[in-house]
Amino acid sequence: MSTLAIRRFDANEADFNTNMDQILSWESVSDDRVNQVVKEVVMDVRQRGNQALMDYTAKFDQLTLTDSAELEISQARLQQALANLPAEQREALELSAKRVEAYHLRQKSDSWSYEEADGTMLGQQVTPLDRVGLYVPGGKAAYPSSVVMNAVPAKVAGVKELIMVVPTPRGEVNELVLAAAAICGVDRVFCVGGAQAVAALAYGTETIPAVDKIVGPGNIYVATAKRMVFGTVGIDMIAGPSEILVVCDGDTDPDWIAMDLFSQAEHDEDAQSILVTPDAAFADKVIESMTRLLETMPRKNIIRTALEARGAVITVKDMEQAIEMINLIAPEHLELSVDDPKAMLPKIRHAGAIFMGRYTAEALGDYCAGPNHVLPTSRTARFSSPLGVYDFQKRSSLIMCSPEGADTLGRTAAILADGEGLQAHAASARYRLRK
Amino acid sequence: MSTLAIRRFDANEADFNTNMDQILSWESVSDDRVNQVVKEVVMDVRQRGNQALMDYTAKFDQLTLTDSAELEISQARLQQALANLPAEQREALELSAKRVEAYHLRQKSDSWSYEEADGTMLGQQVTPLDRVGLYVPGGKAAYPSSVVMNAVPAKVAGVKELIMVVPTPRGEVNELVLAAAAICGVDRVFCVGGAQAVAALAYGTETIPAVDKIVGPGNIYVATAKRMVFGTVGIDMIAGPSEILVVCDGDTDPDWIAMDLFSQAEHDEDAQSILVTPDAAFADKVIESMTRLLETMPRKNIIRTALEARGAVITVKDMEQAIEMINLIAPEHLELSVDDPKAMLPKIRHAGAIFMGRYTAEALGDYCAGPNHVLPTSRTARFSSPLGVYDFQKRSSLIMCSPEGADTLGRTAAILADGEGLQAHAASARYRLRK
Repeated sequence: MSTLAIRRFDANEADFNTNMDQILSWESVSDDRVNQVVKEVVMDVRQRGNQALMDYTAKFDQLTLTDSAELEISQARLQQALANLPAEQREALELSAKRVEAYHLRQKSDSWSYEEADGTMLGQQVTPLDRVGLYVPGGKAAYPSSVVMNAVPAKVAGVKELIMVVPTPRGEVNELVLAAAAICGVDRVFCVGGAQAVAALAYGTETIPAVDKIVGPGNIYVATAKRMVFGTVGIDMIAGPSEILVVCDGDTDPDWIAMDLFSQAEHDEDAQSILVTPDAAFADKVIESMTRLLETMPRKNIIRTALEARGAVITVKDMEQAIEMINLIAPEHLELSVDDPKAMLPKIRHAGAIFMGRYTAEALGDYCAGPNHVLPTSRTARFSSPLGVYDFQKRSSLIMCSPEGADTLGRTAAILADGEGLQAHAASARYRLRK
Repeated sequence: MSTLAIRRFDANEADFNTNMDQILSWESVSDDRVNQVVKEVVMDVRQRGNQALMDYTAKFDQLTLTDSAELEISQARLQQALANLPAEQREALELSAKRVEAYHLRQKSDSWSYEEADGTMLGQQVTPLDRVGLYVPGGKAAYPSSVVMNAVPAKVAGVKELIMVVPTPRGEVNELVLAAAAICGVDRVFCVGGAQAVAALAYGTETIPAVDKIVGPGNIYVATAKRMVFGTVGIDMIAGPSEILVVCDGDTDPDWIAMDLFSQAEHDEDAQSILVTPDAAFADKVIESMTRLLETMPRKNIIRTALEARGAVITVKDMEQAIEMINLIAPEHLELSVDDPKAMLPKIRHAGAIFMGRYTAEALGDYCAGPNHVLPTSRTARFSSPLGVYDFQKRSSLIMCSPEGADTLGRTAAILADGEGLQAHAASARYRLRK
């Protein structure tokens, strides 16, 4: 077996920043061809509805539907998938959904208001979205955990109708995905995918109802279609490749750390796994472990490619410098494999999810710890958050002026409106002044 | 004076839905030419920094800067603008900022966590964004209230550095805008605008620091540039034309309602003002008021164009049907000019801001009531919220497993990871099981 050719950097080398810029840079660009194809598909589904949807499903998914009723996968079929699941898998899925629900219940916002001395009332009314579309990829990346992580927060928020689309190429369905939909209470499921499914959710067809927001992962065509319909409907973040940054003081079993790095690298060739440690000898040990363990991994080719293309092992002078690395990298997943991870928290400004202590494998967060596994990638943790209940609730400001409040506020508003040259604003405020 | 040719609909006519689709439809499309220009400007500023920024400022704003130090407007200059303001305007601006701050303080989220029976800790750490860019338009739409509404929530969130850009065509500055920046504690101000300013904020130049999120209104070039840099930085919503829906039972002074409708229509020719009432005779009176009052308005041409192009007066059979209209239109501003607006709230699902009762002119919300005036337009209130402190905070999930928690959760995670064919995930979880 050949030693894993993962990059090694020292954070105090002269060319470190340039090297880091290089491995961190990631720009997902929809090229002109993809844009053109997606534009045509979206326009066509918007205009021709079901017929276009069935045409593209025949063309791209090799699935010929003769009647638009066949677009829908029945609730009975979902229940059947659930009933046929091995008990162990069913229990694991149910526990996952239950724990994710318990965690997300704590994210729910309530309406609030307050009254001022003059009787003026101010506040915000919080309401759930009416209808949400959940995109679930077919094929190799068909993950039931993704159904749980997207559906549960929407249901906790109180979304009335949750519509799932999942492509079934050549009619192949993923039983785990259907079972997860049954467990999470997904209201309707349609066997379509790609840009055509996104268009159907955004604009509606004779069979698929238009939704208010579309969430869930997908390939470049799906991502491009989501960008295109944004504004007509809401969308979640466009995810980049998965990432993990493990910070270790050197006292965790190097095999554990090696496997944690693998667990992101195995997602796909573009995934990024980085180890930061102040202990250079420990770094050597982790690389030895990775080289040895790699051979045992069914997905070893993907893992090797990812680690050699975008991975890195970085030595730092101390844990202070490790924290600088964290805030620079702003990782999707951050593992703090150290004695006292709580002490580090106040200094950590950017990370999607923080896995604290030697016992918290990142994989627990992917499936069943409770927090969401849909997280900001590609340094977007600098300005965005994990998917949550807050993504399925919205707010309306409330203002109710007493006659006294209308008088006080009206005078101020009129002065400012005059200053901006908006005379109707000023007049509208002045009508309500006390004479 | 000619009668205002505003459309009149009855919600129970056969062709009502078609008519409404027509007046509600709005798609802001950046044409290929705009996209091309913006792409070139953004790439150029990204590559050539200050020099490109100064070149475009000379070209588009007719402002020639000889030294990059001239890009910045000093804090002393902001204080000077504030000191020179008439007392009345200064007090009004200060009151506005104070009230907006008081309201937004109630939106601030705190970190939270909880511990499970086995000692596993779960939660979210909430942190402010590091650095935010605020775009303020120059020229006719230079609104100091916009500085207040964007800057205050960022400051309340705890954003460390707030960078404002404002074009100064031919060197003309808006004193009210600079004074508002001083009052709101904006940290640095640069005299640049357009797509070049957005690019500078997104990528940074030798003088302007790169930010994490860009907020604030702008023309089609600014909006297109924001869309283009989204992902590298966060952005706020891309706003469409302003809208108001007034629902009135017929018992408010028709002049008041007419002026409230004007106060959105005066923004620009594409703005939308709609009245919904169950009282057809009252609808007549409001149209009479509008026809009469229009002549007194300095911005009467804009108002007439907007009302005749996109306005409507709609009669409904009762208040229940009025509520259906609200949820269909999902307006940016909703005015409930009725006796008991609170009773209507539980049925209202979609609105950016709700102005309740006869005394609450929409204009109060634009300036000083407290809630934000940056609101979802073009029916996006179905899935989005007013600008708020939550737009300047972000969350990191926290997971810290006890050895016992790692054992329980690890078993479940391993089963699910095996089901998804992700063996490194499963192995990483199994390492932490009790032997």
